[in-house]
Amino acid sequence: MIPDEDFYKVPEVPGPSKEEVRCLVMCHSRVKEGDVVLEVGCGTGGLTVELSRRAAKVYSVDKNPQALEVTLTNLRKLNPQGEVELILGDALEAMEDLPPYDLLVVGGSSGELEEIIRKAYQQLQAGGRVVVTAILLETRLRSLKVMEDLEMEPRIVEVFVARGRTTQMGTMMQGLNPVAIISGVKKL
Amino acid sequence: MIPDEDFYKVPEVPGPSKEEVRCLVMCHSRVKEGDVVLEVGCGTGGLTVELSRRAAKVYSVDKNPQALEVTLTNLRKLNPQGEVELILGDALEAMEDLPPYDLLVVGGSSGELEEIIRKAYQQLQAGGRVVVTAILLETRLRSLKVMEDLEMEPRIVEVFVARGRTTQMGTMMQGLNPVAIISGVKKL
Amino acid sequence: MIPDEDFYKVPEVPGPSKEEVRCLVMCHSRVKEGDVVLEVGCGTGGLTVELSRRAAKVYSVDKNPQALEVTLTNLRKLNPQGEVELILGDALEAMEDLPPYDLLVVGGSSGELEEIIRKAYQQLQAGGRVVVTAILLETRLRSLKVMEDLEMEPRIVEVFVARGRTTQMGTMMQGLNPVAIISGVKKL
Amino acid sequence: MIPDEDFYKVPEVPGPSKEEVRCLVMCHSRVKEGDVVLEVGCGTGGLTVELSRRAAKVYSVDKNPQALEVTLTNLRKLNPQGEVELILGDALEAMEDLPPYDLLVVGGSSGELEEIIRKAYQQLQAGGRVVVTAILLETRLRSLKVMEDLEMEPRIVEVFVARGRTTQMGTMMQGLNPVAIISGVKKL
Repeated sequence: MIPDEDFYKVPEVPGPSKEEVRCLVMCHSRVKEGDVVLEVGCGTGGLTVELSRRAAKVYSVDKNPQALEVTLTNLRKLNPQGEVELILGDALEAMEDLPPYDLLVVGGSSGELEEIIRKAYQQLQAGGRVVVTAILLETRLRSLKVMEDLEMEPRIVEVFVARGRTTQMGTMMQGLNPVAIISGVKKL
Repeated sequence: MIPDEDFYKVPEVPGPSKEEVRCLVMCHSRVKEGDVVLEVGCGTGGLTVELSRRAAKVYSVDKNPQALEVTLTNLRKLNPQGEVELILGDALEAMEDLPPYDLLVVGGSSGELEEIIRKAYQQLQAGGRVVVTAILLETRLRSLKVMEDLEMEPRIVEVFVARGRTTQMGTMMQGLNPVAIISGVKKL
Repeated sequence: MIPDEDFYKVPEVPGPSKEEVRCLVMCHSRVKEGDVVLEVGCGTGGLTVELSRRAAKVYSVDKNPQALEVTLTNLRKLNPQGEVELILGDALEAMEDLPPYDLLVVGGSSGELEEIIRKAYQQLQAGGRVVVTAILLETRLRSLKVMEDLEMEPRIVEVFVARGRTTQMGTMMQGLNPVAIISGVKKL
Repeated sequence: MIPDEDFYKVPEVPGPSKEEVRCLVMCHSRVKEGDVVLEVGCGTGGLTVELSRRAAKVYSVDKNPQALEVTLTNLRKLNPQGEVELILGDALEAMEDLPPYDLLVVGGSSGELEEIIRKAYQQLQAGGRVVVTAILLETRLRSLKVMEDLEMEPRIVEVFVARGRTTQMGTMMQGLNPVAIISGVKKL
């Protein structure tokens, strides 16, 4: 996993997800060599870079041009060989022109979460997966609900991570914001 | 419990402990009407004010004059009737002149944790308690160890609190730093 | 706060809430001497006993007769002087006949959460509070939503507690289930 | 990552580590193709199987013959092609005969934690890593201390994971025991 501090960052673009969260998203996504991946809401590109190191091809959509710029910078720095197509614009529109894929990763969905997951469900390969990273309470339940409706047998884990920081006085534990990861699978 | 934002604060003095932590410290301390309390390391005075609202008398020691000033400001603002004696200086020296007390609360101990707890054990009333708030890993084990040596049957809880913040997008959960509370009792 | 192990328990009735959770509920409820309290879903009576030690009068409703029996046993054991009226039946019906109160505490609501909070809002004294303890994800959002509709400025905290258990090998940290506490106030 | 329920288990042998913990250990270990790994304390074999899927060769030591049997069963079931050598006995003795390795993973150390890490430090390739999974408070500090003495620049993260369980009433969050992961690197 890439250390947090290796990513280029700008204050206006959220992310990258902390290393531990990226690690758990990669695990729950079950991403593997040869996979085609759609990422919605790439932000700083933290997950984009990790996905591009493991999959054959990643499509990353964001409506914020600055997010795409930052993601591009991070890809060039951290995985220049990765097969990544960056798409500026609305996720639902971008999805019109995509080939089938094995995995949808949602980092941000601008209020279209349900529509994005429903549309992806149509486009996903059988056995394909959906993974949502949620910092909002509302996103947790909405993701569960739509995946239940689609009979994707969603699971949710919530993760609190604290990191030790060495100080003169001793090892201080610093809490990160809790994140939930919701994942489901399109049945074979 | 007093809301965090009601306390006067300066950047140079640590604290106050978050409301949820103060709440749990009050519970584990079993502080009650009529108690005499010694607090070591008052910082901003978060626990000092809470203790002074529940006990008959609080002695608060800090080696930092600015901490005492801030604590005094908070006492005047939030509990002007409280019986609190603020003591500037080294805790071990200050303890020389104290009457017996029912409760020792340690918020900071400047490296003298074991000596302070051992000395307090001598001065505590039978059935009296010691409560340590620990943000450092090292303080957790050192507190457990010295209370075990004194047969105080220490217990430890670690608490992660996340607070919801309402944003335009939804309810974002924000993690606070985890805190451990170690408490023990002087047997009757 | 009363230690968990002091409560009488039967396997069929949920609760009591862990000591740390009861402690935080008491804090967020701001319950004080003289208060009249309505508790919906008393379960084992963990919060009932704590409330009855701090308030003037507690009405506790549960639709499960066994829960009321267990709560009664715990009240007799742990606070025989408490002014508590136990009410068997549906919360919404029971609320018909109550005098105004200062605090509503919801431990379980059998699917009528919104109606109970809305009705309580009518009956609450100005400045009165609602506190919900939620182990379900859904309850968290539903509580926030209805309190927002009522302009109660709800807040939510989620709490993870781990307790140390002394073993031959060392101090093992054991995680409890995370609990959320949602609270709001009826404006003056 | 392998789902928890896919592992064969017996009550007498601890483990497997939960999926999320295995995932984070794999990340922090930076294990990669071609690596030679020493695992001390394999228990049920949860990490053994994961390591054997990623590394060239894994040596797993445990002093409990039953742990080795269970680990063997899990290897046959979940990664029969893995190159794993199971060693019954004391870790320090077993380490006498090993070739250099890239990674030490400590799941259990029977009180010889410091000696094992110090010895491994001698045997590790430059740039090699040590990762300790700690459920005990004491193990956290002891691991940090010995890695600091060896100038391995240790880091520690503590992880609380809660998993959603779908019930008739809704999604109940269930807390797992918090685990700390301590890792360090042998400088080049």
